[in-house]
Amino acid sequence: MSPGDVPVYSMGGRMKAVERRVKIGEVVLRLVMCGLCAITCALIGTDTQVRMIFSLEKKAKYTDMKALVFLVITNGVASGYSLIQGVRCLVAMTRGSVLFNKTLAWAIFSCDQVMAYLLLAAVAAAMQSAVLSEFGQPEMQWMKVCNLYRKFCNQVGEGLVSSFLASLSMVTISFLSAFNLFRLYGPNKGRGNTSYTVSM
Amino acid sequence: MSPGDVPVYSMGGRMKAVERRVKIGEVVLRLVMCGLCAITCALIGTDTQVRMIFSLEKKAKYTDMKALVFLVITNGVASGYSLIQGVRCLVAMTRGSVLFNKTLAWAIFSCDQVMAYLLLAAVAAAMQSAVLSEFGQPEMQWMKVCNLYRKFCNQVGEGLVSSFLASLSMVTISFLSAFNLFRLYGPNKGRGNTSYTVSM
Repeated sequence: MSPGDVPVYSMGGRMKAVERRVKIGEVVLRLVMCGLCAITCALIGTDTQVRMIFSLEKKAKYTDMKALVFLVITNGVASGYSLIQGVRCLVAMTRGSVLFNKTLAWAIFSCDQVMAYLLLAAVAAAMQSAVLSEFGQPEMQWMKVCNLYRKFCNQVGEGLVSSFLASLSMVTISFLSAFNLFRLYGPNKGRGNTSYTVSM
Repeated sequence: MSPGDVPVYSMGGRMKAVERRVKIGEVVLRLVMCGLCAITCALIGTDTQVRMIFSLEKKAKYTDMKALVFLVITNGVASGYSLIQGVRCLVAMTRGSVLFNKTLAWAIFSCDQVMAYLLLAAVAAAMQSAVLSEFGQPEMQWMKVCNLYRKFCNQVGEGLVSSFLASLSMVTISFLSAFNLFRLYGPNKGRGNTSYTVSM
């Protein structure tokens, strides 16, 4: 152990228990998120439906809607990212110790934040498209298409639920990485107080 | 000063300078955000265009598109919220001292996070609608409407830019409130180290 390192048992049992719960929670969330993103990609990426309309064969696929393409790409990237991060957390746990420095914490925090906002934006845009497909927008002369492609729309709906749950997991993970980063800037050195005065 | 409070000068000059910059940055961002959200509401809420199409009078307004209604409501709430928060920060600065406790930090952090994600989701959904209005979606038989209502669409575009900038400000503010909250959980008591070892 280098001179700059502080063993965890000096922080007291409560802090150690919090550390442990945060670490386990982070691993579980990252792996759950990886699975949910992969499910979203599979559900939406493989979704097709063929209909015969006046002897014309019409095929619905996710590439017809740019928002769904964006959703599949974002979920694919998020799935790979959370797998790598989950493995990193697992390795750190099994090795029994983690060297945690500000640069690494900043990198993880930044990537997590970007991923959370990207996933949420992709889900919001895809949901807007889904609502338009389901209900149409009479003021714009945009007709409903889901009454023609019911099976296709249902599968997109399942993908959206899965992606929404993934983005909730990502939001929670980004809280944890913010916690891991910003407590390194703790001002309460030498005391266990919960309040302090800032003079400006 | 109560016994639990720690005067800022005991943290050293560097920490004090960081404190000060964070506080000033927070006030500026909150007031800028309040203005940007108000501008968005004004731009989109007052946006109308009347066209004569085959002797029929057609009027475009923001309520024709649910995503724009959601955007205006979210920006209205965010504008009021950031005004209140900005005034709170200003009062705290002019009074010269802030009593900062975990409960208040958690409340501010939670509200800021919810607001950041809501604003971003609203902007993403409205942008998706705007892209559909501008380019149409031929696969769905959804026609472009912006070539009919050019002035209306341009004003919505300006509102979207303003709202996007507001959501970037809100994201930055939510970083600051995460910083303000989680450093209260700092483990580095008694040392100025930047790395530590966690044993599990």
